[in-house]
Amino acid sequence: MIVEMRKGASTQEVDGVVERARSVGLEVQLNIGTDKTVVALLGSNTGQLPTDMFAILPGVENVARIMKPYKLASREFKSENSVVNIDGIEIGGDRIVIMAGPCAVESEEQLAAAARAIKQAGASILRGGAYKPRTSPFSFQGLERTGLEMLASVREKFDIPVVTEVIDPHDVSMVAKYADILQVGARNMQNFALLTRIGKSKCPVVLKRGLSATVTEWLTAADYLLAEGNGGVILCERGIRTFEDSARFSLDVCSIPVVKRFSHLPVIVDPSHAAGHYSLVPALAKAALAAGADGLLIEVHPNPKEALVDGLQSLTPSDFGRLMKELKAIARSLGRYI
Amino acid sequence: MIVEMRKGASTQEVDGVVERARSVGLEVQLNIGTDKTVVALLGSNTGQLPTDMFAILPGVENVARIMKPYKLASREFKSENSVVNIDGIEIGGDRIVIMAGPCAVESEEQLAAAARAIKQAGASILRGGAYKPRTSPFSFQGLERTGLEMLASVREKFDIPVVTEVIDPHDVSMVAKYADILQVGARNMQNFALLTRIGKSKCPVVLKRGLSATVTEWLTAADYLLAEGNGGVILCERGIRTFEDSARFSLDVCSIPVVKRFSHLPVIVDPSHAAGHYSLVPALAKAALAAGADGLLIEVHPNPKEALVDGLQSLTPSDFGRLMKELKAIARSLGRYI
Amino acid sequence: MIVEMRKGASTQEVDGVVERARSVGLEVQLNIGTDKTVVALLGSNTGQLPTDMFAILPGVENVARIMKPYKLASREFKSENSVVNIDGIEIGGDRIVIMAGPCAVESEEQLAAAARAIKQAGASILRGGAYKPRTSPFSFQGLERTGLEMLASVREKFDIPVVTEVIDPHDVSMVAKYADILQVGARNMQNFALLTRIGKSKCPVVLKRGLSATVTEWLTAADYLLAEGNGGVILCERGIRTFEDSARFSLDVCSIPVVKRFSHLPVIVDPSHAAGHYSLVPALAKAALAAGADGLLIEVHPNPKEALVDGLQSLTPSDFGRLMKELKAIARSLGRYI
Amino acid sequence: MIVEMRKGASTQEVDGVVERARSVGLEVQLNIGTDKTVVALLGSNTGQLPTDMFAILPGVENVARIMKPYKLASREFKSENSVVNIDGIEIGGDRIVIMAGPCAVESEEQLAAAARAIKQAGASILRGGAYKPRTSPFSFQGLERTGLEMLASVREKFDIPVVTEVIDPHDVSMVAKYADILQVGARNMQNFALLTRIGKSKCPVVLKRGLSATVTEWLTAADYLLAEGNGGVILCERGIRTFEDSARFSLDVCSIPVVKRFSHLPVIVDPSHAAGHYSLVPALAKAALAAGADGLLIEVHPNPKEALVDGLQSLTPSDFGRLMKELKAIARSLGRYI
Repeated sequence: MIVEMRKGASTQEVDGVVERARSVGLEVQLNIGTDKTVVALLGSNTGQLPTDMFAILPGVENVARIMKPYKLASREFKSENSVVNIDGIEIGGDRIVIMAGPCAVESEEQLAAAARAIKQAGASILRGGAYKPRTSPFSFQGLERTGLEMLASVREKFDIPVVTEVIDPHDVSMVAKYADILQVGARNMQNFALLTRIGKSKCPVVLKRGLSATVTEWLTAADYLLAEGNGGVILCERGIRTFEDSARFSLDVCSIPVVKRFSHLPVIVDPSHAAGHYSLVPALAKAALAAGADGLLIEVHPNPKEALVDGLQSLTPSDFGRLMKELKAIARSLGRYI
Repeated sequence: MIVEMRKGASTQEVDGVVERARSVGLEVQLNIGTDKTVVALLGSNTGQLPTDMFAILPGVENVARIMKPYKLASREFKSENSVVNIDGIEIGGDRIVIMAGPCAVESEEQLAAAARAIKQAGASILRGGAYKPRTSPFSFQGLERTGLEMLASVREKFDIPVVTEVIDPHDVSMVAKYADILQVGARNMQNFALLTRIGKSKCPVVLKRGLSATVTEWLTAADYLLAEGNGGVILCERGIRTFEDSARFSLDVCSIPVVKRFSHLPVIVDPSHAAGHYSLVPALAKAALAAGADGLLIEVHPNPKEALVDGLQSLTPSDFGRLMKELKAIARSLGRYI
Repeated sequence: MIVEMRKGASTQEVDGVVERARSVGLEVQLNIGTDKTVVALLGSNTGQLPTDMFAILPGVENVARIMKPYKLASREFKSENSVVNIDGIEIGGDRIVIMAGPCAVESEEQLAAAARAIKQAGASILRGGAYKPRTSPFSFQGLERTGLEMLASVREKFDIPVVTEVIDPHDVSMVAKYADILQVGARNMQNFALLTRIGKSKCPVVLKRGLSATVTEWLTAADYLLAEGNGGVILCERGIRTFEDSARFSLDVCSIPVVKRFSHLPVIVDPSHAAGHYSLVPALAKAALAAGADGLLIEVHPNPKEALVDGLQSLTPSDFGRLMKELKAIARSLGRYI
Repeated sequence: MIVEMRKGASTQEVDGVVERARSVGLEVQLNIGTDKTVVALLGSNTGQLPTDMFAILPGVENVARIMKPYKLASREFKSENSVVNIDGIEIGGDRIVIMAGPCAVESEEQLAAAARAIKQAGASILRGGAYKPRTSPFSFQGLERTGLEMLASVREKFDIPVVTEVIDPHDVSMVAKYADILQVGARNMQNFALLTRIGKSKCPVVLKRGLSATVTEWLTAADYLLAEGNGGVILCERGIRTFEDSARFSLDVCSIPVVKRFSHLPVIVDPSHAAGHYSLVPALAKAALAAGADGLLIEVHPNPKEALVDGLQSLTPSDFGRLMKELKAIARSLGRYI
């Protein structure tokens, strides 16, 4: 941590900073410049100490953090890539893993039709929501427990792992019985009560990036899962909120190489929620692969026109089949495979 | 809802829109322009219908919503201002209500010192967090149940109502026993499981705006509380996330007149979390009042340098006293009082 | 244009809207709903009329625009893709065109070394700035006229077209003598005096997206160029300003399919300015191609460590060579070529 | 400047940083921590040196700037407040200066009516645009030279100074003949060719904040004016671009105390462009005063319904009169006057 003193700060003020730093076990190095004094604070845990404890002292102009606030998710903590293994499917290795299916589970027929279509096209994990966090209380909220049972039945029938969202901390262990992977939605990325429970469950988990979370905050949220001993964390970029309104969110494709640089965790991309419109999904899916994503989470519905939720961003089975062919060609050009 | 057809859309495509609209009970008016056909859909519940159900139909270019998605929070639903009564203190009337206190409850001494100072300066409600949602799992997470008991004891001793945050849906009824007002934090604005429980509890509630929530989404989240019959909803603006980094968040002062125009709910402002730095708090507090806020939520700590959380944005009792004098003068100039 | 009247608006108020609409030659269709009256205004030029002229009338709640404000840049105006031809190199066709070179022209040796390297790797257009708009007046501002002469000399020697920025409207015709393509920088996207001059010059032009411009504003700025009869407009996405700070800007990769959907103009991508760091450039370059970009504008410097401007985001010739191989593989997988 | 080395960086890599720093005359202090080495670079001009020159060196993880990039606009350069004197009217002193008038000069009658109304209500400077930078080339672009002559005539008749925008660098000296204050529009904040000319002209100037400029970039743009010897710089906050769409822009009210903390320049606020709607202007104007603004720039039109530009955000003379009474009361409560 670097503490910049105000121009003309007194010796006592500098001493105040030094004392407080030593009181929490930090090493101190003073840099007395012509204009300003700068105090460097060194130690292995400065990323976890609040900058405020120094910023508030008299004579301090500003405090800059050098260490990142996340720890367990960092590549400095673990240098080799983490790979999450779901029934033999490795996420974070050479293979690019495609997860697809409807936004919401609506019926066993709908889910089975989706499972059949996506499996045939080459996807390896089925998605489907039984609990739907909706902006308005007057919208369809999901089939809940019934939806989970449909997921379990279709998983069995098609021998395909499933990923599904959990929204209440007290449902975690129950939902984990039905799901191979839990999903934390973007609006819950900093629902720490939920993260702690999922951490304890040890169930693999897709952690969606909050719609206005920095990459740093996202990796720090992952620390909540990792700190409880859950190593099966898969990050998922799904678009951030910006001023641009031609798509629902702005896919931050640059977050992929940034995550790869600073973290060991695998990262996948949800192009459907970012786009908000089926016509934009293929371009975003292809861009995500080219940027280095380890997988995709794509909405596919057997009949988008009749979908209860987010039909506009869902691909039809035939559009999805076409996209999968393109994705396979790109994967090969990158030296990976689907 | 206004459905714009693509240039050259066929008669069958237009008919498809008309049929779907009639199937959900909407009136239809066709506008056949020189370039494009536009279909207006009329009905009392178009704000709650998803635009997607039309946007996905063949030949449709775009769908624009005319009605707002929120309903119970709207001024069209209830034209006169709502006033929330806390033990005789009215929020949403002529009086401007000041809530103040430490970010986190740290000890009974600390809380009592804060209560004494803020009451003396003219604040009427005490704030203090027992459950702290923190970005990193390695930060102090609050005293939890012990903190609530300290709040109850200080409330008794100083005869002052308290507001405190709840973060887990399953704690709502327990926390409501200790608090006069529950607080939903910004990161939980769309934690719908939590909102539904608080709605059922009927306990007055401060609903902080999510850090990237539009005013429309904020009012729609309020609908979750109102739909369960909880009329004691107080909105709280606390800054939004933007590119500007000289303060922690950008206080959206314009949200105050916007809320007043479109909703009947009272709105208060938290200048402390927006600013992130004590030196900026007074200017934001004064601006909020001048823009029409019904109250303020300000962090005050007896000794900010020793605060466990957010000391940098906390005012000292003497700074708070000075600010209160300025706020009273501004309130008078606006024809209101504190 | 759709004019939504307030609940309870009077007949006279509705008539006021109808009269004003007819006074500017629009057709009117009234939609009298149960709650509200909605007036649809139809005509071929509603995209260019200000919504304000109706929004300000008594009894009006809101005005929504259906037609886009841009006209000449729209796919409705011209349905087939525009192709810009630079000395036989087609931008906007099947070939993906790579423009590369240093941020700033520093010397003839530097520029020649860059030209040799990028040509050998397969790039077909040389970039280099002689006029540099810099955030601070104390930074290097470019070699100006001398830099242009170096560009001309290297263009001759290596037989490669050049693209260079112009920043003062009164320099347009002079710079156009040295350049094959003019560049409008992001900060000048709405410098309308500059756009008008470039429009009149008829010189092909790369129009960079403003760092907080919507796609709609970007296409409307292109209308300034097209309206003066300059058909050689090439759009360039270079990242937008958001809250995320791990890269210099957030590359809005989704703007590529959005532009392709709504406009006939070719679109290229500058991954270097978006990234701000050389380590992120390859991932963004590959993503841009996969998303459908017609070309790239990449910073390459023979010796980035000694660059006077933006060295950190410049690739070395050998890194660029490696990237070009990867880009060629991706282009092939997309059915295109470099 | 603080250079953070990568974990495990070699001695040669650290030496490389030290050498480069010494080569540009900086003092160096090494901080060898347990995990990482941190190099502090000290000198009076580190704010003006590009961080890239160190970030690009081998073994460097990150470079953080301690000194701000602006210099002449900083309070460290000049500690007392600057006051700009326009014909005896002081901007930046105790008095709050109100500038008002139409967005665009439309006719001498319109301008005279506006001048009469605003002077009577207590405003002291007349605004009016003769050159209008418009998003679309098909919109009204201003009366240009004729408009300037109308401004000069009304200035004479009503004995009131005028502020007007200039958009082409080559018009600066001509426009300065007609105007008491030049205005640089938000979209031109980083039009450095324009800033340099205005700097040389020595004419007082209102520098609007760019719609996505940080406060730091805004003050650095002011350095362009100050570096040419023009001390008459007045900053103007006018709203920034964010995701919120209920107003045209989000007024960053916090920029006022931030500017006051870091700069000596006066700062005024334009609530009209921020709001985009007349109903929101009064709340923003009052908030700006309470936050410490030195003045306001408000759009007033004798007949907003007939305005050629931005009528929706213009106040009528009677609304403006009412607002001025409220503003005077607030100014008094702050110990200032209008």
